[in-house]
Amino acid sequence: MSIPKTQKAVVFYKHGGALEYKEIPVPTPKANEILINVKYSGVCHTDLHAWQGDWPLDTKLPLVGGHEGAGVVVALGANVKGWKIGDFAGIKWLNGSCMACEYCELSNEPNCPEADLSGYTHDGSFQEYATADAVQAARIPAGTDLAAVAPILCAGVTVYKALKSAHLKAGDWVAISGACGGLGSLAIQYANAMGYRVIGIDAGEEKAALFKELGGEYFVDFIKSKDVIKEINDVTKGGAHGVINVSVSENAIEDSTKYVRSNGTVVLVGLPKGAQAKSDVFSQVVKSISIVGSYVGNRADTREALDFFSRGLVHAPIKIVGLSELASIYDKMSKSQVVGRYVVDTSK
Amino acid sequence: MSIPKTQKAVVFYKHGGALEYKEIPVPTPKANEILINVKYSGVCHTDLHAWQGDWPLDTKLPLVGGHEGAGVVVALGANVKGWKIGDFAGIKWLNGSCMACEYCELSNEPNCPEADLSGYTHDGSFQEYATADAVQAARIPAGTDLAAVAPILCAGVTVYKALKSAHLKAGDWVAISGACGGLGSLAIQYANAMGYRVIGIDAGEEKAALFKELGGEYFVDFIKSKDVIKEINDVTKGGAHGVINVSVSENAIEDSTKYVRSNGTVVLVGLPKGAQAKSDVFSQVVKSISIVGSYVGNRADTREALDFFSRGLVHAPIKIVGLSELASIYDKMSKSQVVGRYVVDTSK
Amino acid sequence: MSIPKTQKAVVFYKHGGALEYKEIPVPTPKANEILINVKYSGVCHTDLHAWQGDWPLDTKLPLVGGHEGAGVVVALGANVKGWKIGDFAGIKWLNGSCMACEYCELSNEPNCPEADLSGYTHDGSFQEYATADAVQAARIPAGTDLAAVAPILCAGVTVYKALKSAHLKAGDWVAISGACGGLGSLAIQYANAMGYRVIGIDAGEEKAALFKELGGEYFVDFIKSKDVIKEINDVTKGGAHGVINVSVSENAIEDSTKYVRSNGTVVLVGLPKGAQAKSDVFSQVVKSISIVGSYVGNRADTREALDFFSRGLVHAPIKIVGLSELASIYDKMSKSQVVGRYVVDTSK
Amino acid sequence: MSIPKTQKAVVFYKHGGALEYKEIPVPTPKANEILINVKYSGVCHTDLHAWQGDWPLDTKLPLVGGHEGAGVVVALGANVKGWKIGDFAGIKWLNGSCMACEYCELSNEPNCPEADLSGYTHDGSFQEYATADAVQAARIPAGTDLAAVAPILCAGVTVYKALKSAHLKAGDWVAISGACGGLGSLAIQYANAMGYRVIGIDAGEEKAALFKELGGEYFVDFIKSKDVIKEINDVTKGGAHGVINVSVSENAIEDSTKYVRSNGTVVLVGLPKGAQAKSDVFSQVVKSISIVGSYVGNRADTREALDFFSRGLVHAPIKIVGLSELASIYDKMSKSQVVGRYVVDTSK
Repeated sequence: MSIPKTQKAVVFYKHGGALEYKEIPVPTPKANEILINVKYSGVCHTDLHAWQGDWPLDTKLPLVGGHEGAGVVVALGANVKGWKIGDFAGIKWLNGSCMACEYCELSNEPNCPEADLSGYTHDGSFQEYATADAVQAARIPAGTDLAAVAPILCAGVTVYKALKSAHLKAGDWVAISGACGGLGSLAIQYANAMGYRVIGIDAGEEKAALFKELGGEYFVDFIKSKDVIKEINDVTKGGAHGVINVSVSENAIEDSTKYVRSNGTVVLVGLPKGAQAKSDVFSQVVKSISIVGSYVGNRADTREALDFFSRGLVHAPIKIVGLSELASIYDKMSKSQVVGRYVVDTSK
Repeated sequence: MSIPKTQKAVVFYKHGGALEYKEIPVPTPKANEILINVKYSGVCHTDLHAWQGDWPLDTKLPLVGGHEGAGVVVALGANVKGWKIGDFAGIKWLNGSCMACEYCELSNEPNCPEADLSGYTHDGSFQEYATADAVQAARIPAGTDLAAVAPILCAGVTVYKALKSAHLKAGDWVAISGACGGLGSLAIQYANAMGYRVIGIDAGEEKAALFKELGGEYFVDFIKSKDVIKEINDVTKGGAHGVINVSVSENAIEDSTKYVRSNGTVVLVGLPKGAQAKSDVFSQVVKSISIVGSYVGNRADTREALDFFSRGLVHAPIKIVGLSELASIYDKMSKSQVVGRYVVDTSK
Repeated sequence: MSIPKTQKAVVFYKHGGALEYKEIPVPTPKANEILINVKYSGVCHTDLHAWQGDWPLDTKLPLVGGHEGAGVVVALGANVKGWKIGDFAGIKWLNGSCMACEYCELSNEPNCPEADLSGYTHDGSFQEYATADAVQAARIPAGTDLAAVAPILCAGVTVYKALKSAHLKAGDWVAISGACGGLGSLAIQYANAMGYRVIGIDAGEEKAALFKELGGEYFVDFIKSKDVIKEINDVTKGGAHGVINVSVSENAIEDSTKYVRSNGTVVLVGLPKGAQAKSDVFSQVVKSISIVGSYVGNRADTREALDFFSRGLVHAPIKIVGLSELASIYDKMSKSQVVGRYVVDTSK
Repeated sequence: MSIPKTQKAVVFYKHGGALEYKEIPVPTPKANEILINVKYSGVCHTDLHAWQGDWPLDTKLPLVGGHEGAGVVVALGANVKGWKIGDFAGIKWLNGSCMACEYCELSNEPNCPEADLSGYTHDGSFQEYATADAVQAARIPAGTDLAAVAPILCAGVTVYKALKSAHLKAGDWVAISGACGGLGSLAIQYANAMGYRVIGIDAGEEKAALFKELGGEYFVDFIKSKDVIKEINDVTKGGAHGVINVSVSENAIEDSTKYVRSNGTVVLVGLPKGAQAKSDVFSQVVKSISIVGSYVGNRADTREALDFFSRGLVHAPIKIVGLSELASIYDKMSKSQVVGRYVVDTSK
């Protein structure tokens, strides 16, 4: 397979600056890296945060964003083992980690202090050819639909890991706050496949219908409901055993501590700018509830999340557009006009 | 053993009202209860909250407070099994529970919605004779020093369970915020006996000395320290694996989310009036930390906490006064003038 | 509701002696017991062991067997709370326990040294009216089909708990050795509802068809297979994550240690007379596998197992006959001629 | 630091053949390896098994044995990160693993199907210069006594991990079967540091004295005891919560299933040739006990086991001899004449 010298990419040079669709050099993989011909990449809300410079972690600049890239291995670094040209591979948020610290030792690579992040500290998947650490790159089974699988690489893994972090058992109630967006709609399906009973919290009849279609059991319309907390406590006879806060509203998070069951778990999974999780200490102690942070997933979480996808148990409703149109998607995201998940075709 | 008709007790008739040391009838045990001749009772900060009516749970009125009572069984209800006259027994915060709900089914009786609470919804241990549900009453080994064991029944069990809730392993660092008060000084000793490395956060040289004496490893004086968070992160090379918030200050709790290690656990254990636990969502997710509420302990926690005491691994520094002096202790507690744990002798 | 003085029951007076269908007195509930008008009772292989006196635990004699009784509460002992006349109630293997030992304290009542066993140490459900400890009696939701639910009370709870004891997660492979008998056919359905991928090991095309119908994924016919161990290791790419040994054959158990995945769990759940579980130490260490015993279930397991039944996710294929025909079912069981589960109607 | 071309080593060319102390070439580290100047190496029973060819896994031939090597890094492969010349490093049983399979993904590298084993499939530490995979090599803190730490690298890690595999909590009883040999004497100390109460099973007054000296609580002399099983069940009031089978006797292992408490855990940790673990199925189910295999430890276990050593909580009683005398130690091991742990000085 011949690899070109240059390629199309979307680059920005300063936070909030122009998102330029332009020709840049194809990167050369380091000894520990593989080079992936990215076919498709999902577009995630995190990409917007990276471009805006919202977070207390520095990005590289200039930067090629994107961290849900699905493609084909076209070159191997000198010391890479276990990959061959032609394999399907995925670019995840966690591009690479030190593999030596106490977090990496215990498979918690996302918590590695030297984590290298795709589309943040490492040029990501909004280009035709991208590099990924051979250890962390996702192994996508041969024959997979690369456009359809793209959102699983971050959105899918993230909600799957969040559900695991709630420590539920089959038959338990899980509430998904913000049930019908990109993350939530995947969370409903994973929860279903894990045997949980799903409550969705969102607004509008269209979303209520989508929720049922994806396998949800009980929908709470937070606009129509007289009392969201009471409604959930009633239908579950005591509160949800777990809550996945896909919504990043401070109020929604605080509410979730009130409709979670005693001994239950509230999971934080979004990364809002500057928001706080608040909980009444007295109530948290007497109910003995846990509030836990869940951050993407490790390699096993990724393999498992992909396996649910491969077995046809989850799918992301995607819209495919050309990479050249990325700026317009950022614009829609910043205006909260995105329904479902956009996936860019890097060849267009 | 002859049981008198009346006895001395301390009673109050309204929240914040007079604490009357007076003669009242000896209660009759119900079919499921034992009657205990309380010899000694610890005095806990919770007793102050109950008297002041601080919490969103109603107390009975008039009320005899107290929930750290150690004494001798003098009568058995009609259906009581497994106890005999002369056994040593303890009155805990959890006097009884329904034993039928999902929480009781899984040994989480403190979370039972029908929990009956000593010195709160059930007359407690500030009297010579008190009743306790035979299932929940603590089994104190024969020969135990009843004055010394009293504080174990609530303070000891509570910090022991909090330490268990942090899910640590031997060799891990645990920070105790408010290390040298009644709860903290027990927490240091339990943590030590469990093989943890203990960091104490408190103020003053006297407390620093007490901390070392009880087996603590590193003391942070929050008045002298230039930066408590940095100091703990430095000495532990990355943060404490667990934190027990004995202090109920909102700021101290928020700080604890900043010096806990990634993947670590912050435990809430006190019951402050109206306080909130606050955490930065971004940081909690990226560090993947847990904030958990821990509420007293169940029967196994009680048995285990007493076993550490019996084996000489923990002891509470107590001061014994007569029950008739209880009002003056409440006064000291309300002025934060109590060091160590007061225990009342019900015969005086 | 008027309670008769006498009733029909099946009684035996010595191990292996006549199973007499006869009139005996209706028992009187103790203070802690409820009296249940048993409508239907499942017939379990354990009942055969009890009659034959196979086990190293003594039974009472004379004995009324049966421990899968479903019926209606008709009387309450003096101290019973939480039940009312007319409630649906179930008689389980564990009739009652001490509720005070370390096992009961931690919800492991089946392991209580003073466990009282229905149809073993306590007259069971092969009679029209039976007593059960109010704490342990199963709570069956109003409106439940009492014949259909009977086998859930022992067979269902037992396999559900065994599956929990394998510590699997959704998407894992579980092998069921002896997949299509009374226990196995329930295990397939519970495993399915818990999100596991099910391998069944049994023999014959009829069983293969039943296996698929109940939701199993891959069937190994141990008569046709060239190499059961290799076949399972191949289809699962490394071995099953968990194995439920419903079969009590020593060879089948030993085989299961060879087709379980490294880090996986082999669960023992049957109670064969005198059989040993054998495992090669070298291989068990290098593969780091666990072999665990699982014994019926506790109250929460029972509630959960019933909930799966109530939600229509599991059903037992039953055949209803009159209680008067019980002896002929024992005869069939002793000849291994039973397919599915017999349920006796106590009124016939 | 200048590295010689040749070095002293002990090599054998066929199983059971001569153990030749001779000059061989110094190995060259691969891109992913470090070269360690081994100063000291412990001698483990596994080395004897490797030489004798006892196990169903092939060794390389000719072979340099040894897998408890402590030394100094003298060269780095081309792609090695995180190590520098002069660092202290340890050679463990697990020299390297694929880091890509499901076991490596979840930090269970010892279970990797492609595990490369020091002194077995990879020349080990019975030479002056040995290579180790940079990821798996143990990080020994600067200033450590390299002779004293050597046995921690396999014996220490192995018993520490075995204790973790028993899932005990502080205050629980752990029995160590074979308490006073090389593994057992370390197990006593780790168990002590983890807060467990230790029962030792071994024979003779000398061992009884050593047991007490190392912090054990109760010693069972299996020669003097009238009934080992009853004695342990009595002293622990129901059985040990966990058992570590350092002894590899089949009878001792079977006995351990009889003195383990209900709900407790029997750990297998030795690698005897051809032995079976046997358990009565009926009893294992009714007691709900687990029998688990534990195999060396992962990188975190190694770091933690070393940390207990560094903090002075465990030490191995060692005897230092020259590498040239290795054959005589093998001879003693084969005659079961070794007390404590031999460590060879590679310079002699």
